[in-house]
Amino acid sequence: MYRQIGPMHSTNRTKSAGPIATGPIADVGELLALRLDPAGELPLQQQLVRELREAVLSGRLAPRFRLPPTRLLARDLGVSRNTVLAAFEQLSAEGYLEGKVGAGTYVAALTPEAHLAAPKPKAGQKSSPRADAVLRRISTRAAAVTEIQRPRSRPARAFGVGIPDLDGFPFDIWGRLIAKHWRRPPRELLTARDAAGYLPLREAIAAYLNAFRATQATPGQVIVTAGAQAGLDLAVRVMLEPREQVWIEDPGYAGFRAVLAAADVAPVPLPVDAEGLSVAEGRKRAPQARLAFVSPSHQFPLGTTMTLGRRLELIEWAAEADAFILEDDYDSEYRYDGRPIPSLQGLDSGGRVIYVGSFSKVMFPALRLGYLVLPEALVEPFLRVRSAIDDHPSIVAQPALAEFIASGAFATHIRKSRKRYAERKEALERAFAKHLSGVLSLRPIDAGLHAVADILVPRLADTVIAQAAATAGVTIAPLSAFDTGKARHNGLLLGFAGVGEREIDRATAKLASAIASLR
Amino acid sequence: MYRQIGPMHSTNRTKSAGPIATGPIADVGELLALRLDPAGELPLQQQLVRELREAVLSGRLAPRFRLPPTRLLARDLGVSRNTVLAAFEQLSAEGYLEGKVGAGTYVAALTPEAHLAAPKPKAGQKSSPRADAVLRRISTRAAAVTEIQRPRSRPARAFGVGIPDLDGFPFDIWGRLIAKHWRRPPRELLTARDAAGYLPLREAIAAYLNAFRATQATPGQVIVTAGAQAGLDLAVRVMLEPREQVWIEDPGYAGFRAVLAAADVAPVPLPVDAEGLSVAEGRKRAPQARLAFVSPSHQFPLGTTMTLGRRLELIEWAAEADAFILEDDYDSEYRYDGRPIPSLQGLDSGGRVIYVGSFSKVMFPALRLGYLVLPEALVEPFLRVRSAIDDHPSIVAQPALAEFIASGAFATHIRKSRKRYAERKEALERAFAKHLSGVLSLRPIDAGLHAVADILVPRLADTVIAQAAATAGVTIAPLSAFDTGKARHNGLLLGFAGVGEREIDRATAKLASAIASLR
Repeated sequence: MYRQIGPMHSTNRTKSAGPIATGPIADVGELLALRLDPAGELPLQQQLVRELREAVLSGRLAPRFRLPPTRLLARDLGVSRNTVLAAFEQLSAEGYLEGKVGAGTYVAALTPEAHLAAPKPKAGQKSSPRADAVLRRISTRAAAVTEIQRPRSRPARAFGVGIPDLDGFPFDIWGRLIAKHWRRPPRELLTARDAAGYLPLREAIAAYLNAFRATQATPGQVIVTAGAQAGLDLAVRVMLEPREQVWIEDPGYAGFRAVLAAADVAPVPLPVDAEGLSVAEGRKRAPQARLAFVSPSHQFPLGTTMTLGRRLELIEWAAEADAFILEDDYDSEYRYDGRPIPSLQGLDSGGRVIYVGSFSKVMFPALRLGYLVLPEALVEPFLRVRSAIDDHPSIVAQPALAEFIASGAFATHIRKSRKRYAERKEALERAFAKHLSGVLSLRPIDAGLHAVADILVPRLADTVIAQAAATAGVTIAPLSAFDTGKARHNGLLLGFAGVGEREIDRATAKLASAIASLR
Repeated sequence: MYRQIGPMHSTNRTKSAGPIATGPIADVGELLALRLDPAGELPLQQQLVRELREAVLSGRLAPRFRLPPTRLLARDLGVSRNTVLAAFEQLSAEGYLEGKVGAGTYVAALTPEAHLAAPKPKAGQKSSPRADAVLRRISTRAAAVTEIQRPRSRPARAFGVGIPDLDGFPFDIWGRLIAKHWRRPPRELLTARDAAGYLPLREAIAAYLNAFRATQATPGQVIVTAGAQAGLDLAVRVMLEPREQVWIEDPGYAGFRAVLAAADVAPVPLPVDAEGLSVAEGRKRAPQARLAFVSPSHQFPLGTTMTLGRRLELIEWAAEADAFILEDDYDSEYRYDGRPIPSLQGLDSGGRVIYVGSFSKVMFPALRLGYLVLPEALVEPFLRVRSAIDDHPSIVAQPALAEFIASGAFATHIRKSRKRYAERKEALERAFAKHLSGVLSLRPIDAGLHAVADILVPRLADTVIAQAAATAGVTIAPLSAFDTGKARHNGLLLGFAGVGEREIDRATAKLASAIASLR
C-alpha cells in the first residue's frame, strides 16, 4: 500500500511543498531499510528509534516524507503496534517527526541533512575545521604551553628520575584502609563539598608538616590539591596578573614554567649557587617581581639545599617587595645528611609563604594528591577560585590517606624508605667508584631521590651521554635539559630510589661502557 | 663553668665582634631554658634540636653566643654526649650554629631574629601584609571570581537541587570494586601517567556515551577530569583569549560564569526560549563569538530541552563563525518523557563540539570525576595544557569506576534511579495539586532532578518565598538567582530526586503554609 520513494540523496531530492505521495509496497519496513534484531541487546523500540533517526539524519528519509501507518509498520517489522507508537512519539518529541491525529506522521519539514551532511562553505570558508586550522584557534596561552617540553615518562628502569621504591610501599595497609572506608560510607562523605578538601585529611597534613617540616600550619590553612602541579597552577592564577614577573630557579622545574606560560606570566630565571637561588641576582634583575618560586629542601635538578642565610634573605626580600614566596618542598622527606632544614613556611612570620607539597613521591606517583599551606589571609580567595575551576579532588582516596597519615603508617613508611634509599645511594656511590672513576663524578647526595654527576671527560655533552645510555638501556636525564634558554650546565641526573642495589651496579657498568664507546 | 648571659632580647643585645664571654654556671641546660622530656614522643636528639633552634630563632640565644661544651650540656640535660653532638651537627648543617674543632660551638654570626622577629618597615611599608592588603594583591581574575556567588550547599533535605538519591546507590558493588582494585595493584597502575586518564575508564566512557547518548566518541577523544567543572575550565583556558566573547544561557549556570571570570573571558548572556538558547539573538548580539556554552539536554535552571531544530541552527552558526560549542550534557541520563535526544556531539559532523559530562549526579557528588569528549584535532593541545596545570586526576577511583561502567552496573543503576525519580516527580506533582493549587504551578518535568514552579500569586518574589521556606525548614532556590545581571525571572527550583515520597508531601505542605503566612 505504501511505496518508498527511493533513497533520498541530496542530488535527487524532491522539493515538494506538501507530504510526499507514497504508493503501495509489499514490505514497508524492508523498503525503509529498517534493521531490527529481536536478539539484539537493545529493546526493539530503541532499535526502531535509532534506525528511523539514522534514516532521517542520513537523508534516506526526506523532509515531509509520510511514514506508513503504525499498524502496517508494526506488522511488517514483526513488532507490536505499541512499540511503533512509542518510537514515533519519541521521535516527534525529538523533532524528527511531525504528525497530527488522522493526518499521519511525517518526517519533519526541517531538513536536518541540509544542515548536517554538507554544511555549505561560504566564501571559501571551511566549515569542518582541519587540524592545523584548529591549532591556530587555541589560545596563545595554550599554544605557549604546547612549546614547553616536560619529561613525561616514569621509567621503572635505572636511572629514571622521580620514581620511588614501589615494592616497599605497604599496599596491604593501604588496601585495607581504602576497603574499610568504602564498605559502608557515611552519607556526609558522599555529599562532602569542602573546596579545601576532606577535613580529617587536612588535619593529618597540618599535624604531619608541623611535626616533621617545622611548618606553622592549621588545618584551615591547608588545601588538598590534585598533586603539587595543581597547587602551583592555582597559586599562579590567584596571585599573578598576566605579564607580571616571577623569580624562578635556573636550572629548574620545567613544570612550573609550563604553569607560568599557561597564565601568561613572565619568568625571571635566576642562577642557583651553592646556597640556593641567588637573591642578589634577583634584586638586581627584577626587584619588583611579585613571586619567587623555589625548591629549597632539594633544589630541582641540582640537589642544592638552600642555606638558612639564603632563606632569611629571600624572606626579607619578599617583605620589602611586598612579594610572595612559593615554596615547593620538593624531596624534603628524604634527607641523608643531617635532618631536614625547617621550611621557609616555618621560618616566615610575615604570611608571605605559600607552601606546596605532594604525596606522589612518598606514596606512589599515580595517587596525584598534594596540598597547599596558605597564609591565613589568602585562604578565602584561593577557595573561591578553587571552587570555580575544579572544586576539591575526588573524595575516594582522601579518608584512607588521612588515616594512613594519622595512624603513623605514613611516617613509618618514610623512615623505612629513607633507610632503603640511603643504602641505594651508597650503592650508587660504590658503583661509580668502581666503574666510572675519572669519567663521571657524583656530587654529594644530601637528600632526595636522584643524584647529579659531573662529567670529567672534556668536550663530552650530557645529551650525547644520555643518548648513548638510552641505547644501552639506561635512562639518564641530561642536566642541560633543565636550563632555561640555552644550555649552560653539563651533567647527568640519576634516579636511584626505585632501583635495587644489584641493578644499580649493573646499570652503572652499562653506562660506563656506553661512555667508553663514545671516547 | 659557663654563665648564660641572660635572655637575648633585641633591646639589650650585646653587639660584640667576637664570641660572647660566658662564665661558670650551675646547670647549663636549665639556664639555656631547654626543656627535654624523656617520656616525650620525639627522640631526645630531636627535642634538643627543636629547643635550640627555637632559642636561636626567638633571639633567646644571640648571634655569636658560645654554647657550652657538649660534655657539660649532656651531663646537665641527662642525655648522652652523642645525642648532643648529633644535635649540634644538625644545627650546624642547618646554619644555626657554627663551630671549629677546639674553638667551641657558637650561634651563627647571622642574626636570624633580626630578619624574622621584627622585619624593619621601610618608608611606611608593612612587611607582614594585613588581610585587606593581601586581598588587594590577588589577581584581577581571581578577584572577579570572588564576586560571583555559587550555590555551595548540598542540602540533603527537601528540596535541595542536584542531590541524587544516595540510598539507592549500590555501595556494595562499588565498595567491592574499590577493594578489589587496591588489594594487589599492578605496578602499571601505580606509575600510570596518562594526562588523559586511565585508558580502561576512557574506553568505558566512550562506549557508554556512544550507546546511550548517541555520541561519536573514541577513547582517544576522552579526557577524564576532576568533575565537569574542571572540564569547563580546561576548555576555556585552551580555547579562549582574554576578552573574547562566549555565548552563555541566561538564566544559566553560575559555575560557568565563574570559569569565564577566572580566565578574563567576556560572557554574552542570551535568552533561553521554549526551544533552548536563542541562536538568532546570539547572531544579532555577538555573531563573532568564539564559543557557545549550552546545556541542551536539560537547560539549567529552566529545564528546557533544546529542540533538534535549534541544535542544528547552533551547529550551523558554529560552522559559519568558525566557533566551537561547549555542550554540558547536564542531567541527560534522567529523562521521563520520551528518550534522551541525541547530543550535539553526535549530531555535529564538523568537529566543533566539546562535550562535557560528570559522574557526580549519577554516582555521588563527592566522587568528582567527569570527562570531556574532544574533536580529534583538539586532543593534543588539551593534553599539553592539562599536564601543565594538573595532569590526570588521582588514579584511586578510576579502575573501579571503569569496571562499574563496563560491567553494566552503571546502566542498571541509572535505570533504577530513573524509575525512582519518575515516582518522586509524580509525588511532587500530586503534592503540588494537593497543597499549592492556585499558588504555585509546576512546569512539565521532562527530565532531570529538579522541577521549576511558576508563582501564581501576584507581586510575590521568589526570593521572599525562598526565605520564608528556609525559615520553615524547606530549601528552595529562587529562579531569579540564576539571571545574569538584574532579576527577570520569578520562580522556584525544587530538587526532588534525593527526597522520599512522604517527605516530598510533608515539605510541600510546609512550603504551602510558609507562603500562606506571606499573603
